[in-house]
Amino acid sequence: MKKLILFALLMIACTAYSQENNKTSNKIIRLEKAALERWDHGDVNGYLELSAKNVTYFDPMLNKRMDGKERLAEYYRPLQGKIHVSAYKMIDPKVQASDSMAVLTFNLDSYVGKSVRRWNCTEVYRKQKDNTWKIIHTHWSYTKPALKP
Amino acid sequence: MKKLILFALLMIACTAYSQENNKTSNKIIRLEKAALERWDHGDVNGYLELSAKNVTYFDPMLNKRMDGKERLAEYYRPLQGKIHVSAYKMIDPKVQASDSMAVLTFNLDSYVGKSVRRWNCTEVYRKQKDNTWKIIHTHWSYTKPALKP
Repeated sequence: MKKLILFALLMIACTAYSQENNKTSNKIIRLEKAALERWDHGDVNGYLELSAKNVTYFDPMLNKRMDGKERLAEYYRPLQGKIHVSAYKMIDPKVQASDSMAVLTFNLDSYVGKSVRRWNCTEVYRKQKDNTWKIIHTHWSYTKPALKP
Repeated sequence: MKKLILFALLMIACTAYSQENNKTSNKIIRLEKAALERWDHGDVNGYLELSAKNVTYFDPMLNKRMDGKERLAEYYRPLQGKIHVSAYKMIDPKVQASDSMAVLTFNLDSYVGKSVRRWNCTEVYRKQKDNTWKIIHTHWSYTKPALKP
């Protein structure tokens, strides 16, 4: 009988843990999609609002990692209103999380008219003191880029 | 007097926290460099031993994110003994850490003879039950690649 009770308690704990993890995953994917959809409509502020002050950042247009939200804001500012992505497909998003940090990874197909740009994306989120999640690291890269010889 | 004692205690706590953070940073950079140096001498097992079972992985040769250490081992196996990097420069490594997760980012110049390949790298580490740190996510991409038109 004791064993049965222990087993039941273990099952309840596992279910609660898994539900909590799912909740975090869903929340983070929701945050990312909301920022991405604003970006696709020309609004760079979705990602800026979601980024922490000490964010670190890679994309394939940069010579080196960029550090800090202020520099990222300067870098994004000229793009405001200039991006028009007609549709996107977020492929197989996956969240690997601890209590206070989480890494979201996915592939992205980004359509402008008939042409498609394919991306690899890594976003590291950290839970802030006010319990909101912010991006502390972003890495965008082209999926299997064809290089100049 | 009370204020002075409180201030001193706060300073001690801050110093201890910062020292702990530095310790984690140094440990993670050391782990990464050791794996990288084995890689540069043709041994893919350094990175494999450092990767967790559930690792997720991007590099610019792949069509999509790769999931799991077993698949990564299959992917790396044919490279064993075939990589000969003559020198590397790890540029500005930075660790952003919580108690149980940490993201290491750096730029890498990788020399083969006189040619250099420039990389952006993200490694997400997670502390395991036995207190060792393992990579749960890797993202390698080319720095500012020149694309075919």
